[in-house]
Amino acid sequence: MTRGRARSVPELIEGARKGDARSVARLISLVEDASPLLREVMAGLAPYTGHAQIVGITGAPGVGKSTSTNALVGELRRTGKRVGVLAVDPSSPFSGGALLGDRVRMQDHALDRDVYIRSMASRGHLGGLSWTTPQALRVLDAAGCDVVLVETVGVGQSEVEIAGLADTTLVLVAPGMGDAIQAAKAGILEIGDVYVVNKADRDGADQVRRDLRNMLALAEREDDDWKPPIVQTVAQRGQGVDEVVEKIDRHREWMASSGELERRRVRRARDEIEAIAVTALRARWGDVHGRSELDDLAEKVAAGASDPYAAADSLLEAFTDIG
Amino acid sequence: MTRGRARSVPELIEGARKGDARSVARLISLVEDASPLLREVMAGLAPYTGHAQIVGITGAPGVGKSTSTNALVGELRRTGKRVGVLAVDPSSPFSGGALLGDRVRMQDHALDRDVYIRSMASRGHLGGLSWTTPQALRVLDAAGCDVVLVETVGVGQSEVEIAGLADTTLVLVAPGMGDAIQAAKAGILEIGDVYVVNKADRDGADQVRRDLRNMLALAEREDDDWKPPIVQTVAQRGQGVDEVVEKIDRHREWMASSGELERRRVRRARDEIEAIAVTALRARWGDVHGRSELDDLAEKVAAGASDPYAAADSLLEAFTDIG
Repeated sequence: MTRGRARSVPELIEGARKGDARSVARLISLVEDASPLLREVMAGLAPYTGHAQIVGITGAPGVGKSTSTNALVGELRRTGKRVGVLAVDPSSPFSGGALLGDRVRMQDHALDRDVYIRSMASRGHLGGLSWTTPQALRVLDAAGCDVVLVETVGVGQSEVEIAGLADTTLVLVAPGMGDAIQAAKAGILEIGDVYVVNKADRDGADQVRRDLRNMLALAEREDDDWKPPIVQTVAQRGQGVDEVVEKIDRHREWMASSGELERRRVRRARDEIEAIAVTALRARWGDVHGRSELDDLAEKVAAGASDPYAAADSLLEAFTDIG
Repeated sequence: MTRGRARSVPELIEGARKGDARSVARLISLVEDASPLLREVMAGLAPYTGHAQIVGITGAPGVGKSTSTNALVGELRRTGKRVGVLAVDPSSPFSGGALLGDRVRMQDHALDRDVYIRSMASRGHLGGLSWTTPQALRVLDAAGCDVVLVETVGVGQSEVEIAGLADTTLVLVAPGMGDAIQAAKAGILEIGDVYVVNKADRDGADQVRRDLRNMLALAEREDDDWKPPIVQTVAQRGQGVDEVVEKIDRHREWMASSGELERRRVRRARDEIEAIAVTALRARWGDVHGRSELDDLAEKVAAGASDPYAAADSLLEAFTDIG
């Protein structure tokens, strides 16, 4: 590969499949920049996707997400797996520092060629995970990763969304956060496939585990085949991390044999197709004849001269044959 | 109005405009149930909307949101305003109890005919505020409320969304939560128009105020006309609540004179029209010929036989004349 010459999409895909980290990085940059080449990239990657297990890692700030991710990478490497890490930053202006810190720590694995580590700004609506995240996951999947860990940097909104992207969702909690119950209210009891009580050497870890077990028992539905296990870890010392990896494996097996893996993936593909179609439509109705049709309609609604349903009808009539 | 006869939409709108609480309640139920009558309701309400100031109230659990809302209702009533309260529950299975508790406390004002109080389940995507919330706000606006307070019951995801719906956003913090900085990361520094340090009689209130002021100074942009004030309150004893109302008034005046009110409202109308149009499209492409076109495409993508862009193209070709 000559330095300086821009490589074509087929060359980048070929490179990524052979394990060339620069090709992987370049493809993810195309995703991040919403490049016009993305159509070609996604078409080219499609035949090579579907192998990787996507593992979402979520939890309140301070539970040790980055440390746990780092420890998981090490353990997964020991079992011979190729690992991708995607750290998604829901673009708070204040998280730059934290992000940098994480990445520095992550350099434990930076020279290992079977580990791809990538931070990505999320440009999603309202700071959530955008539809670019699933596309970056496709790149890492096609590049031959066995497992891709997706971690959000920052707080809040993305917890539930990350579960939507993952085959397996790890929910991290820790003692002394005072927020186990609050976190429960935020819906983590519905999204976890494996629960990890990190910092298990601290006071209160057993209590957190008991609380969690009780809350999970309450939330359980009769038709649930998979009972989310709770693992205690001290990620900083690597303690319990092998057990987490074992549970992740077990979950993958259950997903495949129960048909749930296929169901989740079809649902995700559905969401992704919809998001792309809606984005394309929005681009079209947002900018016609130099002036936005939608802006005109919005002004009328804001002034009480129209209502949102009538305006939506006008919009659809103008842009589809099914209005 | 004869008991038992279902009232027509024009009758309900007429009733709501005359201050009949049952008509208001019935209209909001139509919104909540996504009734087919909604088109007629929204068309009928449109001419009477645009008067109310929509005030969003947000903050972490435990800062005293319900108590503050209750105190604000009292203070706004003292200044002669008609007040609406919309408590939106982002449908956690665990928040039922909290919701009930809030509403019981709110009964201070239940017999005051110039106060409408309504709890609403949010059926939005991923637990956020759905597009039904703006429609419920239209009902309260058309019913003659001067101010509508929108409060989310529960945590997390909805904080930023509530700001998108409001003319004025109050962000509540409290000492001893240990989460002022974390909350800052979640983006509250970008959404608050007025900040309230509640429980100001507790240790650490001044520190919280100083922290907040410093963080706001850092986040400030040069072109910001409005500098968000910080008010200290003890909502439980009504202390400082008059000052909060004064700041809300000031913000409304600034919004109107700067043109920002108009801009925010047009943007909101835009989002609402889009959401309705997209929902209509989704309903159509999700169910054609008994079997969903989108499901077929999603299965192909999940199997690697197609990619999301090609699938989105197919979808748009099938349903619009601009594919």
